[in-house]
Amino acid sequence: MSIVTRRGFVGLAGLAAAGLSRSAATQQSPSSGQDRSRAPRDTARARDLSDDELEAMFRRCSNTGKWGADDELGTLNYVTAAKRIAAAQLVRTGEVVSLGRDISQTASKVDPSPAKLMITFGNGPGISDYFAMAPHGMTITHLDSLAHFSFNDTLYNGRKRSATMTSGGAQWGSIFALRQGIFTRGVLLDVAAARGVPWYESNEYVTVADFEAAEKRQNVRVSSGDALLVRTGMERMEQERGIQDTYPRAGFHAECAEWMHEREVAIYGGDCIEKLPYPSERFPSAMHMMALVSMGLPILDWPALTALAATCARESRWDFLLTTAPMRLPGGTSAPVNPLCLF
Amino acid sequence: MSIVTRRGFVGLAGLAAAGLSRSAATQQSPSSGQDRSRAPRDTARARDLSDDELEAMFRRCSNTGKWGADDELGTLNYVTAAKRIAAAQLVRTGEVVSLGRDISQTASKVDPSPAKLMITFGNGPGISDYFAMAPHGMTITHLDSLAHFSFNDTLYNGRKRSATMTSGGAQWGSIFALRQGIFTRGVLLDVAAARGVPWYESNEYVTVADFEAAEKRQNVRVSSGDALLVRTGMERMEQERGIQDTYPRAGFHAECAEWMHEREVAIYGGDCIEKLPYPSERFPSAMHMMALVSMGLPILDWPALTALAATCARESRWDFLLTTAPMRLPGGTSAPVNPLCLF
Amino acid sequence: MSIVTRRGFVGLAGLAAAGLSRSAATQQSPSSGQDRSRAPRDTARARDLSDDELEAMFRRCSNTGKWGADDELGTLNYVTAAKRIAAAQLVRTGEVVSLGRDISQTASKVDPSPAKLMITFGNGPGISDYFAMAPHGMTITHLDSLAHFSFNDTLYNGRKRSATMTSGGAQWGSIFALRQGIFTRGVLLDVAAARGVPWYESNEYVTVADFEAAEKRQNVRVSSGDALLVRTGMERMEQERGIQDTYPRAGFHAECAEWMHEREVAIYGGDCIEKLPYPSERFPSAMHMMALVSMGLPILDWPALTALAATCARESRWDFLLTTAPMRLPGGTSAPVNPLCLF
Amino acid sequence: MSIVTRRGFVGLAGLAAAGLSRSAATQQSPSSGQDRSRAPRDTARARDLSDDELEAMFRRCSNTGKWGADDELGTLNYVTAAKRIAAAQLVRTGEVVSLGRDISQTASKVDPSPAKLMITFGNGPGISDYFAMAPHGMTITHLDSLAHFSFNDTLYNGRKRSATMTSGGAQWGSIFALRQGIFTRGVLLDVAAARGVPWYESNEYVTVADFEAAEKRQNVRVSSGDALLVRTGMERMEQERGIQDTYPRAGFHAECAEWMHEREVAIYGGDCIEKLPYPSERFPSAMHMMALVSMGLPILDWPALTALAATCARESRWDFLLTTAPMRLPGGTSAPVNPLCLF
Repeated sequence: MSIVTRRGFVGLAGLAAAGLSRSAATQQSPSSGQDRSRAPRDTARARDLSDDELEAMFRRCSNTGKWGADDELGTLNYVTAAKRIAAAQLVRTGEVVSLGRDISQTASKVDPSPAKLMITFGNGPGISDYFAMAPHGMTITHLDSLAHFSFNDTLYNGRKRSATMTSGGAQWGSIFALRQGIFTRGVLLDVAAARGVPWYESNEYVTVADFEAAEKRQNVRVSSGDALLVRTGMERMEQERGIQDTYPRAGFHAECAEWMHEREVAIYGGDCIEKLPYPSERFPSAMHMMALVSMGLPILDWPALTALAATCARESRWDFLLTTAPMRLPGGTSAPVNPLCLF
Repeated sequence: MSIVTRRGFVGLAGLAAAGLSRSAATQQSPSSGQDRSRAPRDTARARDLSDDELEAMFRRCSNTGKWGADDELGTLNYVTAAKRIAAAQLVRTGEVVSLGRDISQTASKVDPSPAKLMITFGNGPGISDYFAMAPHGMTITHLDSLAHFSFNDTLYNGRKRSATMTSGGAQWGSIFALRQGIFTRGVLLDVAAARGVPWYESNEYVTVADFEAAEKRQNVRVSSGDALLVRTGMERMEQERGIQDTYPRAGFHAECAEWMHEREVAIYGGDCIEKLPYPSERFPSAMHMMALVSMGLPILDWPALTALAATCARESRWDFLLTTAPMRLPGGTSAPVNPLCLF
Repeated sequence: MSIVTRRGFVGLAGLAAAGLSRSAATQQSPSSGQDRSRAPRDTARARDLSDDELEAMFRRCSNTGKWGADDELGTLNYVTAAKRIAAAQLVRTGEVVSLGRDISQTASKVDPSPAKLMITFGNGPGISDYFAMAPHGMTITHLDSLAHFSFNDTLYNGRKRSATMTSGGAQWGSIFALRQGIFTRGVLLDVAAARGVPWYESNEYVTVADFEAAEKRQNVRVSSGDALLVRTGMERMEQERGIQDTYPRAGFHAECAEWMHEREVAIYGGDCIEKLPYPSERFPSAMHMMALVSMGLPILDWPALTALAATCARESRWDFLLTTAPMRLPGGTSAPVNPLCLF
Repeated sequence: MSIVTRRGFVGLAGLAAAGLSRSAATQQSPSSGQDRSRAPRDTARARDLSDDELEAMFRRCSNTGKWGADDELGTLNYVTAAKRIAAAQLVRTGEVVSLGRDISQTASKVDPSPAKLMITFGNGPGISDYFAMAPHGMTITHLDSLAHFSFNDTLYNGRKRSATMTSGGAQWGSIFALRQGIFTRGVLLDVAAARGVPWYESNEYVTVADFEAAEKRQNVRVSSGDALLVRTGMERMEQERGIQDTYPRAGFHAECAEWMHEREVAIYGGDCIEKLPYPSERFPSAMHMMALVSMGLPILDWPALTALAATCARESRWDFLLTTAPMRLPGGTSAPVNPLCLF
């Protein structure tokens, strides 16, 4: 299927999904603290796909078997040694930008159960600590493992979720599979700047047209093995309007996942994921499901992009070295990370 | 003071500290689960320094005020933009080696309270988790913040520990201060290989002579801003003999800290720290105290070095790019990390 | 159905369940750390029931709707005000026996992830702590809420588990439902003493005949609203033989649950639950499922009975006041308790 | 010293402590989330005592050595077998009132880090959970162990705090010492009702005169071994005015502790403790320090009294059986409890 054909059915006038059944109420985003089923569902800037269209897309994007039946790396396979060497060559000024958000211990409406740190009692010269966290949601910059999402009890590469999960961890596709880390070219697409808006409003889709407009404006092209970062201006919006609800939020139309599939993106991160709530019963977390389950594309969730965008604009360059590595925790569905970008 | 003079008082015949008072019993390493006060204290390969000699060394190595009264970066100030650019140039084959150890959820004699991961219940397509850990000791590869140790209630750069610590975190010198991460040249000194032994025995000091013998053998020189990694063969010893007690263990003589001070090392990591137990009342964790408190040199604690040493030997090169970044957790005295080395 | 009839099909020669499918492997007891599917399954002293026989018993014992469609108290409804008044009259010598086991922070083969307590740092005159635990399994004396077990996605009183559970707690049937606590007559049946054995061996069923032999020997009768405690000598066995595996263990034949149903027992506790592993695919935790799901009978799991049995024997009385109350934690499927018995 | 003499120096016109040094800023109540040093310190209804007067009172109330050098029970020694038998006789109607407050998982200004409960993933018929909490402050009904507070590094019965505390628990005087629980006569003094006010205002002291007025109005007398409960109407105030700050709050004048000492109270619980902030540098938590450290009197902290007061008023009786027992957690400085009162 060509991009043209695929884009053909994504028009500018969105159509809200209707007739959602009660079962959607239980498809609440983990740790969100807010109810997906009661959130406004109207969308703007692209046509909502039907569940059948989404499922067809899900099947088109599948990398099942592509790197072998036991592959747990997914699209990180696109990051070759040559890609790493080239990425290192992007370090020209030595400037560093961290993409991690500061981890808060204060509860908020999108983070009712924040990380907890304790300094433990001690009499000697050393002093130690203990911390606990649930590294998902819009709270902590984290890397999602491929086992974080399923579709019909199936994980990436055809594994059964029910046979993989235990109370103590995922036996396959966990964050441990990503233990060699990420070291590749990063590309920031500032779609808010490309549209000339300070931020996307909460009912708006980000579309493939937005990606390509940003590529054109920035004179950059996303290529195989890249870490793609997308900025819709969410941080600036929250600076001005205060912390936003989990639902609704601007985010990707599912076609964006297919575009990443075609461009062979290795990993995605941004200030949005799918449009929330996503107008689908079968794919309530469309981007998570297309990326993690179908493509095997790990997600760098909830990075800070403001400093990065400022540096890119100042330096007039939109690619850089991006590197991070999750802690080697067998079984985890995610890990907190603090990715570094080097210019 | 010259290295020659300093080395003059470090002889080959160690002398165990005598007359330890009961108070030493409480200077147990955090989370060790074993008692420092009852461990064998004999040392070999260098003379034990007196507490007064150690305190004099502590004062000679001090970087207090060197980078300003508010500095929290310590020796990471040696990592300049130029150093980062040069480090990136070391990426020639694109090979990656991770230095993180696998995080265990199983208790052991050196880790009575291991990390705990839980997959949390969910009905939807996503599945999430929660974890808790105390990232110190010989269990999890971690980065020690400068506030992890004190001497006479004083932290690095003259801050008072009692005014800095709260139950919820360190108000200064925490792991958050290191949020821009590490991106610099790494150098591995394989002192076990240089001595021609499979590993150091548990009563042996690692000395400056060992460092310099390894430099000579490897034809490499540790320079300003480097990440220094030292391998005594502990992992191989544990493969053959099984997991070792916390005490005794081979480790650095305090003179090694002063050598790092003179070479302007930015960060240290290795399969040992100070000799354990360190034969001193005043400096029961000599290396931690010299490095973290006096010099402001962060410690990469408990890395895995076996794969790294094998790669270095195969490639006949002992320097590489080393990069990592702690999660941005305000107040933490440490953070789990998974550093990457690129060749 | 009469007891005679029911007992008719429970013979003395047990027959191990055969042909267990692979699915049993996932029916591992929570937090057990050992694998049910590979444990020896032979039984002694009673005939194994078929799954159909068990399901028929499950339906005979059902209290669904008995106390109203919204009832969350189950058999605690048998504890009337008159029962409490009578129970208080049992306090004659003022002697107190605690049934709680000491909570361990040390991992063991039946408790790979024990409770964790931390004293938190503080500068003032007060000192505080933090603790975490998973209060199930053979580790901590705890009270199981009715929502702790399900059968075919159904909880006590016909509620659907899938509609009741969230990652943050059970919305119905949680330990919070038992917040008014237990204050009733306790009766200890020392079935080991009645049989004249120091303990039951690990393949033996406890049967209704054992209950009635103990009643006869002790000259006591279990009656409506009682807290029933049963002692098979497990603690003494572990004192002599060391800590035992999770599987196999002596425990109840399912007929014991039906006997409790007929006697209107309000709550059960003992040094055993069902025989482990229970020889059934459909009812892998037969006693938990009969009691919690069918009858709505809460379980006091893993009490210490040695001191209680000694006191009963010394005083030649086997009934006493038993009281405890779980912390008021909405959503919990259990809570640690320390029940008191007063003589 | 007579009560008359002691009361002599406690007048009606309070005098706020002046000239508080900076050190008070660190004497923040554990887990309070608010700053004691900046709170209004005016008091009403009694004269503030000087630090020297408080220290003299602290010494007068001391039970050090009274029950032997190794005693960890403190005033629970007043609860004799005869006292327990008599307490059981108070059960006449069989009505039960629980004193536990519902445990919240929602952060608030007095509870920035609430309890956390998680249901853990499972495939079988059972479902389990995990919880963590810091059971202090105005959040969870809990029992304070004697080691929860110190004065000049000294705990109850002369033990040194620095030699008793470790990061993993208190080696002496922990909640484990109270493992035989509480089973005694409870007496509620409704001082708000005695004064004819709905609640005490936040700058008001509760005084001995208030206690005795309530005794007279209720025709009851607090006697040796009793559990004393005091109600100032705080719950009603919060129902009408919303949740209050940690500071300021109405609470006891230190003389109340001495009165309890003279009446041989076994345990205290109420909707207030000391007046907060307490106007003293040396005794910033006067009631906690007098009770826990000097007298060895455990504190039942933050009980719910509204239902109890209503029952007492309805039944026109102010004494009842009170029973509870902390979980047997060695080392804990507190434990969550849900005490039961039986009428």
